[in-house]
Amino acid sequence: MNYKITIMYDGSRYKGWQNLKSTDQTIQGKLQELLQRQVGYPVEVIGSGRTDAGVHAIGQVANFHLKEDYSCEEIKRMFDTYLPEDIAVTRVEKVGARFHSRFSATKKCYRYRIHTAPASNVFERKFVYHLIEDLNVEAMKEAAGYLVGEHDFMSFCNNKKMKKSTIRRIDSITIDTKENGEIVIDYVGNGFLQNMVRILTGTLIEVGRGERSAESMSRLLEAKNRELAGYTVPPQGLCLLWVNYEE
Amino acid sequence: MNYKITIMYDGSRYKGWQNLKSTDQTIQGKLQELLQRQVGYPVEVIGSGRTDAGVHAIGQVANFHLKEDYSCEEIKRMFDTYLPEDIAVTRVEKVGARFHSRFSATKKCYRYRIHTAPASNVFERKFVYHLIEDLNVEAMKEAAGYLVGEHDFMSFCNNKKMKKSTIRRIDSITIDTKENGEIVIDYVGNGFLQNMVRILTGTLIEVGRGERSAESMSRLLEAKNRELAGYTVPPQGLCLLWVNYEE
Repeated sequence: MNYKITIMYDGSRYKGWQNLKSTDQTIQGKLQELLQRQVGYPVEVIGSGRTDAGVHAIGQVANFHLKEDYSCEEIKRMFDTYLPEDIAVTRVEKVGARFHSRFSATKKCYRYRIHTAPASNVFERKFVYHLIEDLNVEAMKEAAGYLVGEHDFMSFCNNKKMKKSTIRRIDSITIDTKENGEIVIDYVGNGFLQNMVRILTGTLIEVGRGERSAESMSRLLEAKNRELAGYTVPPQGLCLLWVNYEE
Repeated sequence: MNYKITIMYDGSRYKGWQNLKSTDQTIQGKLQELLQRQVGYPVEVIGSGRTDAGVHAIGQVANFHLKEDYSCEEIKRMFDTYLPEDIAVTRVEKVGARFHSRFSATKKCYRYRIHTAPASNVFERKFVYHLIEDLNVEAMKEAAGYLVGEHDFMSFCNNKKMKKSTIRRIDSITIDTKENGEIVIDYVGNGFLQNMVRILTGTLIEVGRGERSAESMSRLLEAKNRELAGYTVPPQGLCLLWVNYEE
């Protein structure tokens, strides 16, 4: 049986999604440990993508295969009972054998939250990037327009050893400002490279500061050089909102 | 100079507002330590009331006297620079010498949040009481009606050695239900006894479960016996919203 699960997590305590060493505290590791303890054999939990240390998720998706035919309710109950309080499986579905949470994904949405007001909200501190600066949001929106579409995003990838294609499609970048001085940037696309959303956000912030022009985004994409893009914003402002599997 | 400050805190890491032993991790202690380091002599920070360990505040109010005449901006900057990230001073005002954050307070509002949906929201876990039960909210509202007004709330006080008056006035208890299964109870009154809001909430929950009738609230107030009231709900769902000083 192939199970698809939807996962919400507060990433503050974790070294990200992926288990590299078995001693690392990761979301994937927590899920795999729990399943192995319940079914008695190692289970690989395949995520739709890795999230970095400190990054959160409301709708991360993963899948795993079990030899037995547990009901979705039974699987859900296992997670509800044994997961730590900062990870929750919000949905369990049975899916076809060919479903693969990474390869089958068609779209993803990441949200990055910036608080620009001087007074920080202590309850939000682990979920926003607190940056007390006046940003030109109109310039940021204009710059975002240049980034939408299918491009080689090599300039926005922190993985220098990346051997696979760095071409991705961004469907939309929506920048909203709220009354309390919060700027919310939603990125929807078919996939994102390592640190890509955080570098895109850092670059847009530099546009908002007037350090770069909106038009310079075209040259930046063409340059295919990470050194020329903006800084990598901190992880806590980032959250994986949803992963889509419909065509 | 007498300074009035408004404080927001995530109480998760603290043993409540009041400093009993100097080694305790408390909100008052953090503020007093910081001020003493800055001005060079001990400063007593007087809170509008104590909050228990794990209880939060959005608008706690306190006052303190300094020998020097610092500007409000200077005081604000001290706090902004040196407070830990889970405490924030959101406002600093100069007030008359007779202002006392506890004695001058006329009204306070506490909020208690209950999540009744099976799926917990991992981001809210330190700020709500997760109770997966169907509660009869209409019965709770009816019961709340009996509690509003000036009463002796001895049945709702955990301090057995309380020697002062246990008479308080509750102006309103507002119970709202949200789409996501959250129940929000706002208590406004002239003052609250030790654990009073948490015991009131536990008692209202028992009414919501059908274990008590709404009418039984009258007898409970008359009985003046803590043993007869409901359980004390956990601290993390509680937040001090505001303190009022206008007549």
